[in-house]
Amino acid sequence: MYEDQFNIKNKLSMGPHTLEISPSLYESNRKRLVEELNKMQKDSIVVLQGGSNQPIYDTDASYLFRQESYFTWCFGVVEPDCFGLIDTVSGDSYLFVPQYPVEYAVWNGPLPTLEEFKKKYKVNYINYVEHLGQTIKELNRSALLVLNGLNSDSLLKTKEANFEGIVIFNVDRISLHPVISNLRAIKTSFEIEVMKYVIDITSAAHRHVMRTARTGLYEYQCESEFLHYCYKNGGCRTVAYATGCGSGVNAAVPHYGHAGHPNNALLKTGMLCLFDMGASYFGYSADVTVTFPAAKPGVSWVAMHLLANRVLLEQLKKGGLLQGSIDEMVDANLAAVFQPHGVGHLLGLDVHDVGGYLEGFPERLPTPGLKHLRTARKLEQNMVVTIEPGCYFIDPLLDKALKDFNLSRFIVADSLKRFRGFGGVRIEDDALVTENGMINLTKVPRTVEEIEDWMAGKNDHKYGPVRISDFSFDR
Amino acid sequence: MYEDQFNIKNKLSMGPHTLEISPSLYESNRKRLVEELNKMQKDSIVVLQGGSNQPIYDTDASYLFRQESYFTWCFGVVEPDCFGLIDTVSGDSYLFVPQYPVEYAVWNGPLPTLEEFKKKYKVNYINYVEHLGQTIKELNRSALLVLNGLNSDSLLKTKEANFEGIVIFNVDRISLHPVISNLRAIKTSFEIEVMKYVIDITSAAHRHVMRTARTGLYEYQCESEFLHYCYKNGGCRTVAYATGCGSGVNAAVPHYGHAGHPNNALLKTGMLCLFDMGASYFGYSADVTVTFPAAKPGVSWVAMHLLANRVLLEQLKKGGLLQGSIDEMVDANLAAVFQPHGVGHLLGLDVHDVGGYLEGFPERLPTPGLKHLRTARKLEQNMVVTIEPGCYFIDPLLDKALKDFNLSRFIVADSLKRFRGFGGVRIEDDALVTENGMINLTKVPRTVEEIEDWMAGKNDHKYGPVRISDFSFDR
Repeated sequence: MYEDQFNIKNKLSMGPHTLEISPSLYESNRKRLVEELNKMQKDSIVVLQGGSNQPIYDTDASYLFRQESYFTWCFGVVEPDCFGLIDTVSGDSYLFVPQYPVEYAVWNGPLPTLEEFKKKYKVNYINYVEHLGQTIKELNRSALLVLNGLNSDSLLKTKEANFEGIVIFNVDRISLHPVISNLRAIKTSFEIEVMKYVIDITSAAHRHVMRTARTGLYEYQCESEFLHYCYKNGGCRTVAYATGCGSGVNAAVPHYGHAGHPNNALLKTGMLCLFDMGASYFGYSADVTVTFPAAKPGVSWVAMHLLANRVLLEQLKKGGLLQGSIDEMVDANLAAVFQPHGVGHLLGLDVHDVGGYLEGFPERLPTPGLKHLRTARKLEQNMVVTIEPGCYFIDPLLDKALKDFNLSRFIVADSLKRFRGFGGVRIEDDALVTENGMINLTKVPRTVEEIEDWMAGKNDHKYGPVRISDFSFDR
Repeated sequence: MYEDQFNIKNKLSMGPHTLEISPSLYESNRKRLVEELNKMQKDSIVVLQGGSNQPIYDTDASYLFRQESYFTWCFGVVEPDCFGLIDTVSGDSYLFVPQYPVEYAVWNGPLPTLEEFKKKYKVNYINYVEHLGQTIKELNRSALLVLNGLNSDSLLKTKEANFEGIVIFNVDRISLHPVISNLRAIKTSFEIEVMKYVIDITSAAHRHVMRTARTGLYEYQCESEFLHYCYKNGGCRTVAYATGCGSGVNAAVPHYGHAGHPNNALLKTGMLCLFDMGASYFGYSADVTVTFPAAKPGVSWVAMHLLANRVLLEQLKKGGLLQGSIDEMVDANLAAVFQPHGVGHLLGLDVHDVGGYLEGFPERLPTPGLKHLRTARKLEQNMVVTIEPGCYFIDPLLDKALKDFNLSRFIVADSLKRFRGFGGVRIEDDALVTENGMINLTKVPRTVEEIEDWMAGKNDHKYGPVRISDFSFDR
């Protein structure tokens, strides 16, 4: 019945012009998780709780539902209020879905039946949430593994599974989080396919915006073009993070686009646009500004960052803005004046993906220029990272540096003046770490010539073919 | 400095092609509130806490910030983490904004100065949040009035102001909520201007989608067109509620478009589209499906609903789907089988606006057909309401009715069969109650002929002129 009503029959897709995700993606993640856990635990059950709708304050309107990322990684379920179990002994997966009253179907449409849910998500067992406790009891394993860890970027706690009756079980809050977070940092071929898709759509939308943006438009009108392109052509209903479309001086604001600065400035002739926008598809994130790839597995992320800093300082010196010894500038951490953020971060389900700081991996460094890095790990094969060197002219940072002799001695103050209010530049790529090096998944024009050609309507086929067979919808 | 960087200088607007909201809107609301409160309280201070960013689970990404509606109503502030005071003795308003560390400006851009905040929102006093307690102490009134009430639609509690040190004051949690909620139900001329604007944009976007929708598109691609139109042309970054674009049988699902049914069906030839979409502009909501206006002040909303039910039953009888006495059908509540929802609701900052059930006004009726009504009040001048009669063929409701002799005796079962899977129809208007009757603020084609003409590209100027001077952006 459910199948009859929807063209998309139990598939994780937004139509044949979009990527169809196989439930094997989640099956493969669960298998990896069980293998890892079996190295340390005797017999246990992983218990995960999916996300719920988030109401807007006291109203009966909600934010558009987004599934919790660890739950997505294990089960791919797009509906709210579910639980999932993974038995580490048998490897079996159990999905528990809410049983709504009959009235639910009147207001919200037919729910898939249990059998349809089972088929859609390819789990071994399916039941209603009310049977969760009884199922766990019958499995009779020695521990329940639940998520309890801090996100190393937000410092917020993960969503720990909780249900009536959990107190009678032996709950292990420690073991699961580091293992699953590390697995999330290394992508499978299934995941890489989805990330390629969402980065493809994002790249195409960036190219579309580059041709649309013109003097006299507001920044948010470019944002709107991007959102529309990703949703209409790629089925991406949400973006991975608040879209930032800074022009001119706003290009120097890394998190531009929030409520206080909602992309509401006018594009004026001669201004640079720094557009940081990434779509999200079935939970997987893209994060693109433009492009600049380099590096290979085994390289430390800290070293990458320091190298980018050195290149930045060398170029600023070449441009006459800095003077003196590059080594001394590095020691004085001068680069952080111009690029206060890290050179990039892990990317996956979350735009700032988990796995950056885990026990057994390098700890966060206390040094001023390095403490903001979202990871200090060495790169590993099948990580996906952003590479986003930037150079900004941020008044409070410049003012502070000019007052600090240890920094000001390198700065050619007169030359710097010309760049006040200039904004900034960031070129941000999404790259896959392979055995032999990096593959840049981003397909946008980079050099001055490439950008000018693209904006003039040339080179339509240079960046494609776009994965999706048919981009023929009018935009 | 802040003014220099933005084309929009301390204005509540998204550029000259969009509506500029005067801070007098909020000043006028506060004045009305003080007048009401002075009828009952001796001397007090209204304390309101604005909304904060809502993180997406444990990640460092947030939902797009939306201000809390009562705070918007009083202050219009678009930034998070603020507090506001209104002194009922002097009528003075106080706004308290967060003082972020210097680093904030590096990442998020310059904050307006205190003076700029004061000018932007036209409050009497401005300071940082840390001075809130001291200011209240110095005002030395006999009570603090904070919000503590249930939203009659969601049954969730309002956001009660809370700050360190509040315990030393005499806090009144009772008085404020009913007064402010009732004031919110009756709109001022300032508010009506904003609501007209957001309904204008919404109407124009609906008309645009009607010309864009075609066989072979997915429902969500029509949603994307709507969102893009409202944002790019009208500066509406968010919508008032989850956009529902039901085609065919999905048109019978009142809350279609949620995560479980994300507008992902294909538009097929001959299907009806029921698109329920409304933009939001500086917090004010539109809520439009199509159109059908009637009524005037003093009329009870319950009577309106019952009248709509009777018309529905009469038409279904005329169409050969029902048989027997209309009065007996009304007594048996047969209409709820075809229209399970109420005929409309209050509209304002919230799509289901507050003020529906307050002490001193009619209580929620327990009758099956009436318990879902979002208000039982009489209409008053300057209320804005939706009028949204619908008729749906919802399988679980039809099956239940056919098994119930008290209902099935009216149903011509053979005729009804033809409409299984047909979906449904809803025509939803946003209307202003005036002294002499209703003004329909919605401007979309309604009759078969009007719809066919519009979709064929005719009558461009029939529904305008659109308020906004220049809709010349390419769409």
